[in-house]
Amino acid sequence: MTFAQRLDNVETSAIRELFKLLGKPGIVSFAGGFPDVTLCDAPGITEAANAALKQDTAAALAYGATEGYMPLREQLTAFMRAKGATDVKAEQLIVTTGSQQGMDLLAKCMISPGDKVIVEGPTFLAAIQCFRLYGAEVITAPIDADGVRVDVLEKLVEQHQPKLVYLIPTFGNPSGATLTLERRRRVLEMAARTQTLVIEDDPYGDLYFDAPPPPTLLALSQEVPGSRGYLVHCGSLSKILSAGLRLGWLIAPPDLLARTVMCKQFSDANSSTLAQTTAAQYLAAGRMAATLDHARAAYGQRARTMCDALSAGLGDRLEFVRPQGGLFVWARLTGAGGALKDAKAWNERAVAEGVAFVPGAPFYASNADPATLRLSFATADDAKIREGVHRLVKALG
Amino acid sequence: MTFAQRLDNVETSAIRELFKLLGKPGIVSFAGGFPDVTLCDAPGITEAANAALKQDTAAALAYGATEGYMPLREQLTAFMRAKGATDVKAEQLIVTTGSQQGMDLLAKCMISPGDKVIVEGPTFLAAIQCFRLYGAEVITAPIDADGVRVDVLEKLVEQHQPKLVYLIPTFGNPSGATLTLERRRRVLEMAARTQTLVIEDDPYGDLYFDAPPPPTLLALSQEVPGSRGYLVHCGSLSKILSAGLRLGWLIAPPDLLARTVMCKQFSDANSSTLAQTTAAQYLAAGRMAATLDHARAAYGQRARTMCDALSAGLGDRLEFVRPQGGLFVWARLTGAGGALKDAKAWNERAVAEGVAFVPGAPFYASNADPATLRLSFATADDAKIREGVHRLVKALG
Repeated sequence: MTFAQRLDNVETSAIRELFKLLGKPGIVSFAGGFPDVTLCDAPGITEAANAALKQDTAAALAYGATEGYMPLREQLTAFMRAKGATDVKAEQLIVTTGSQQGMDLLAKCMISPGDKVIVEGPTFLAAIQCFRLYGAEVITAPIDADGVRVDVLEKLVEQHQPKLVYLIPTFGNPSGATLTLERRRRVLEMAARTQTLVIEDDPYGDLYFDAPPPPTLLALSQEVPGSRGYLVHCGSLSKILSAGLRLGWLIAPPDLLARTVMCKQFSDANSSTLAQTTAAQYLAAGRMAATLDHARAAYGQRARTMCDALSAGLGDRLEFVRPQGGLFVWARLTGAGGALKDAKAWNERAVAEGVAFVPGAPFYASNADPATLRLSFATADDAKIREGVHRLVKALG
Repeated sequence: MTFAQRLDNVETSAIRELFKLLGKPGIVSFAGGFPDVTLCDAPGITEAANAALKQDTAAALAYGATEGYMPLREQLTAFMRAKGATDVKAEQLIVTTGSQQGMDLLAKCMISPGDKVIVEGPTFLAAIQCFRLYGAEVITAPIDADGVRVDVLEKLVEQHQPKLVYLIPTFGNPSGATLTLERRRRVLEMAARTQTLVIEDDPYGDLYFDAPPPPTLLALSQEVPGSRGYLVHCGSLSKILSAGLRLGWLIAPPDLLARTVMCKQFSDANSSTLAQTTAAQYLAAGRMAATLDHARAAYGQRARTMCDALSAGLGDRLEFVRPQGGLFVWARLTGAGGALKDAKAWNERAVAEGVAFVPGAPFYASNADPATLRLSFATADDAKIREGVHRLVKALG
């Protein structure tokens, strides 16, 4: 069988290889990219599902509008307004099957084969692959502890005139980094000035540990004339309510939004209305604030435990910036004292010791730094985190 | 903003225009393409959702395997085996976000811009659009009352060497037609002989009124050597359990299946696990047989009422084949006695009288027959169907 040419652009063996390692019994895994399902408010979701099936029976069981279930669109709009995007209206927001579908639809609408796309290096692996499947040439803009290097990004945009720039400005995956307020302004100014579409993917922004992060690009765009017309915001319930609902949302300029709706119609018609009506009931019941407080406290505690243990156990052999939210610590082997500098080699030794993480190379569309790695603290308790780091230290030798 | 070139291949204004007409108060609509949500077993689905959230809590609320929730894959496999595809294994079946996503993934995996695809004329509109969005040139194979004209199809395949042939062999949308057993064999023989991928889209096959239809291409492929390697079967729970779950499935040869899984990973990661665990519980509870009996009886009654009323009211001015299952009557204005022959013009008059259907032209990828139309009997009761047909008769004048 001859498959479509677009499949030639995607290489997935590196990831498959990784996940093969994780089947080992007794392994402490820092490799996952997922939130902790035990933090989900299962009773609240059950109550919401029952309310949906009882009160909104037809809406829950039938096909729905491709744009999404209007009461959910309204709830999500209110959620965004409460976070500072005070001028957003429900008509500007559509529901997607996870924010992953948002990426897929945007790529489908925007990217012709050979078009250029700029992403952070490192960034979310599935976004790189998604863009490549539509034939994009993916270009990397470097990041530091303050998020994407906007000075470099501006030059890359000028040089390459990309169809879009994809950013995770807050508690990035895998970087954990958060773009500063000043850089956020500059990104928006650049979008408006160069008429370049910027996608803000924001699945983690609500998972801050202490203080809230700077306002989203969406909220800030109200203050930067002309920027809203070149900005897409993608949100997700997967990390804050339940990944099992597979619900995200997308806020985009009207002409692009209309096209994403058309593409969604021919992709999956609509997102599960059982899930949508359940989510709408959940949000209407006002439980989200407590759910978020609970998750913030748990993840914050785990992040502190992991960072403290890494510092204590590895000293200057591993460098990292303490994340202020999200699910990940992004770290770099320094080679200090002659220690290992290759994260892939370290991971192989670590798996033999009964602990795993993800070497950083696959998160780069280009110019990978082989000394980098991602550690997730999301799903292990304090004792497991300490034991896992203990094994990591042993593995580094 | 400059959008992707692929969007230039799709024209949706004809459909939008249509649906604008349906907002009129008091209208009897035969225009819908949807099943009757009131036939859903809401108590059974509620029970299943509660069982899923209680017994499979983590599976219901977390991310899941891209291939689908294994207990659901096993239930769907058993469902297919019970319908004659006795050699199918759960590993050969993946869960999709409705069978619409099956089409999207198959198109993504198979179609490079300029590739050819053969579909029935008429066929499911969203399949045509889905294929065009991946740059396909869509070619039409004519149908008659016995489904696709296999003699013509064979010649078209030889002439065009398409990447795939898309068929709805049983109770087609919009045609209502069912491919005969003999033609089914010939399709499979052609697939094996010419090494041409055939997609069997089968959302309606379980909705027969009296006798079951001929075996699916999937079941029959066991008897046609070499055909299974060029056959994809797409199924859906949308018409038989609930469209709100947004769950379908796809059975494909291993090399193609692996690629659809990869594409699904970057499309929506996995289908809603809340929906999947609910569906698995529902199927395991053994309620499906009664649910199907109920739907078959209801749709069969409505189809008879509509066909009887059309024959009585319009005589030889309208020709159609009585469907043996599904949701649709496909009909053709004959112009007998000097009556109208244009379905679009009739529909405009009909809307003025308070009844609507879908003119047939948009269901053709090419060579549309403007005298054709689709009438759905799915969502109206007998009295409404009679009143609607009465208005149709008035409108034809």
